[in-house]
Amino acid sequence: MTQNRRFLLRRRPQGEPVPEDFELVTEPLPELADGQFLIRNHYASLDPAMRGWMDDADSYMPPIPLGAPVRASTIGVVEASKAEGFAPGQWVMGLNGIEDYSIGAVGGFTQPIDPGLVPSVTNYLSLFGAVGMTAYFGLFEVCEPNPGDTVLVSGAAGAVGSIVGQLAKIHGCRTIGIAGGAAKCARLTERYGFDVAIDYRGKDEAALTAEIAAAAPNGVDVIFENVGGIILDAGLMNLNMHARVGLCGLISEYNSAEPVGARNLWRLIVKRASIRGLLVADYVARFGEGAAKMGEWAAQGKINIDEHIDEGIENAYPAFMRLFSGSNQGKMILKI
Amino acid sequence: MTQNRRFLLRRRPQGEPVPEDFELVTEPLPELADGQFLIRNHYASLDPAMRGWMDDADSYMPPIPLGAPVRASTIGVVEASKAEGFAPGQWVMGLNGIEDYSIGAVGGFTQPIDPGLVPSVTNYLSLFGAVGMTAYFGLFEVCEPNPGDTVLVSGAAGAVGSIVGQLAKIHGCRTIGIAGGAAKCARLTERYGFDVAIDYRGKDEAALTAEIAAAAPNGVDVIFENVGGIILDAGLMNLNMHARVGLCGLISEYNSAEPVGARNLWRLIVKRASIRGLLVADYVARFGEGAAKMGEWAAQGKINIDEHIDEGIENAYPAFMRLFSGSNQGKMILKI
Repeated sequence: MTQNRRFLLRRRPQGEPVPEDFELVTEPLPELADGQFLIRNHYASLDPAMRGWMDDADSYMPPIPLGAPVRASTIGVVEASKAEGFAPGQWVMGLNGIEDYSIGAVGGFTQPIDPGLVPSVTNYLSLFGAVGMTAYFGLFEVCEPNPGDTVLVSGAAGAVGSIVGQLAKIHGCRTIGIAGGAAKCARLTERYGFDVAIDYRGKDEAALTAEIAAAAPNGVDVIFENVGGIILDAGLMNLNMHARVGLCGLISEYNSAEPVGARNLWRLIVKRASIRGLLVADYVARFGEGAAKMGEWAAQGKINIDEHIDEGIENAYPAFMRLFSGSNQGKMILKI
Repeated sequence: MTQNRRFLLRRRPQGEPVPEDFELVTEPLPELADGQFLIRNHYASLDPAMRGWMDDADSYMPPIPLGAPVRASTIGVVEASKAEGFAPGQWVMGLNGIEDYSIGAVGGFTQPIDPGLVPSVTNYLSLFGAVGMTAYFGLFEVCEPNPGDTVLVSGAAGAVGSIVGQLAKIHGCRTIGIAGGAAKCARLTERYGFDVAIDYRGKDEAALTAEIAAAAPNGVDVIFENVGGIILDAGLMNLNMHARVGLCGLISEYNSAEPVGARNLWRLIVKRASIRGLLVADYVARFGEGAAKMGEWAAQGKINIDEHIDEGIENAYPAFMRLFSGSNQGKMILKI
């Protein structure tokens, strides 16, 4: 009988997740019921949003149950099937778990994908997956940039941020990226075409505010926010009239027992600006449109993506934690 | 020669203003130049926004210069004039200062008003002034409530909040008001028609969150925010999908050296909700439309307003500070 290694959530993390919050177990596979298929997961996407799913909080999705595998987008191959439309050998992408095998069902989140359409099948977890679609719809639908606008991106070397910067550039905007460390900042300007890179490390809110002001002498029209805390506050100090802040994530706050919060919301009044939360799930019906544009720009060489692939389900914990330490260089993916 | 008592800003307050930040002086009046007129100020509006004007901050208006009278909306009577359109005896409203006399000029902010159109001339500082227009345009243009929506108002017994609650009720919304103390909460339901009043005193964020949830079992569609801090955070925890937060003020933060900030912005992502800053100055061209609606509803007995009038320019400081202690009962006005 086939064995299934599964990376389970054992305990709800208090602040920063620790290894004891998880457990890697080996379990036998259950039999497939009618309408189900067996997925051999090859890659799992590791995303900041997963930290939120570990909390027992009312959110857009139920919390990961204790004792269940950590929920993640995965890509893999159908290995056995009692479901129409999912034949063995078919590549699929879906919201499954960090485990060797997941059970899929017709009508679930799992969809067939074609590896022949992309340079690497893992691109379905970056440019052509939720990450790329978050960047595309978050920027264009929520932030509504105009050509010539100045767009500030935090977490700019991250999976979403690096794509946002390139899309804004394609759209004719001036782009400023914030990231941690010299290596990431070099990537911002050299790989992702940001006009200016700002290294947030070692800087307080006043220093960041001044640095953004120097990079954006005419002010900031759009913020694509992935980080929160003093980085968001420094951005708010530089808003232009009627500026739009698209709130994609607040990674600096996710592991904090006592969040810093946003202390400069008064700038929204001064500048009649807005902050709007965004979630890629709202745009699933339009993913085809987004993927087509992404494919076109990628084929024209206008979008560079980087994927940071760690290997082995036994490394799931340290690989996930890279998202918070910032030690990843590109979209974080686990090869199972 | 006529003497002019003037309430000057001497020093920029650090946190909560203290009496030594101000000075009441008596100065002679300057001669009128051509195009100028002399206003005898009868009433000054005392508003939370004035606290922001005392800081040396980049805002929507320059800071009050040190040594100048504290800027305030006033109503008064033209006493002498070298300006066309402003004859002696004419009542006027304008952005002047807390002083017996101000100099007006053609083309400035000062406009003629007609006391015959309103029950009390002071209503030009409440229902028919910036306060009423903030409520009207802030609610309808920024928060976009639909009939049947649940509308949460913080600072609900205040000048703006009390009107917002009544406008939302006229619009067919369910209204929940937050205020400090039993007397104010009684006013919310008895005078301003709120469906539920919540007393924030002595409650932490969790308790406020639970109380709002009990009052709004179907969630909150609109927040009209005047307060900030844990009151805003508790509201954010109760947002419905696509809820709108109109950010009018953050009075709980204005005197804080270390603001609490908003720690629950992640709810904007979960609910794809937005926070938008609002300032009445954007709607000056439409004040006629707003005042006409207000007049109609007031004549139908659908809007109750309360004005708290303290007397004497020598009481300017304690009267202003009522805004922060909450000891006023209605729109705060100083009779000079």
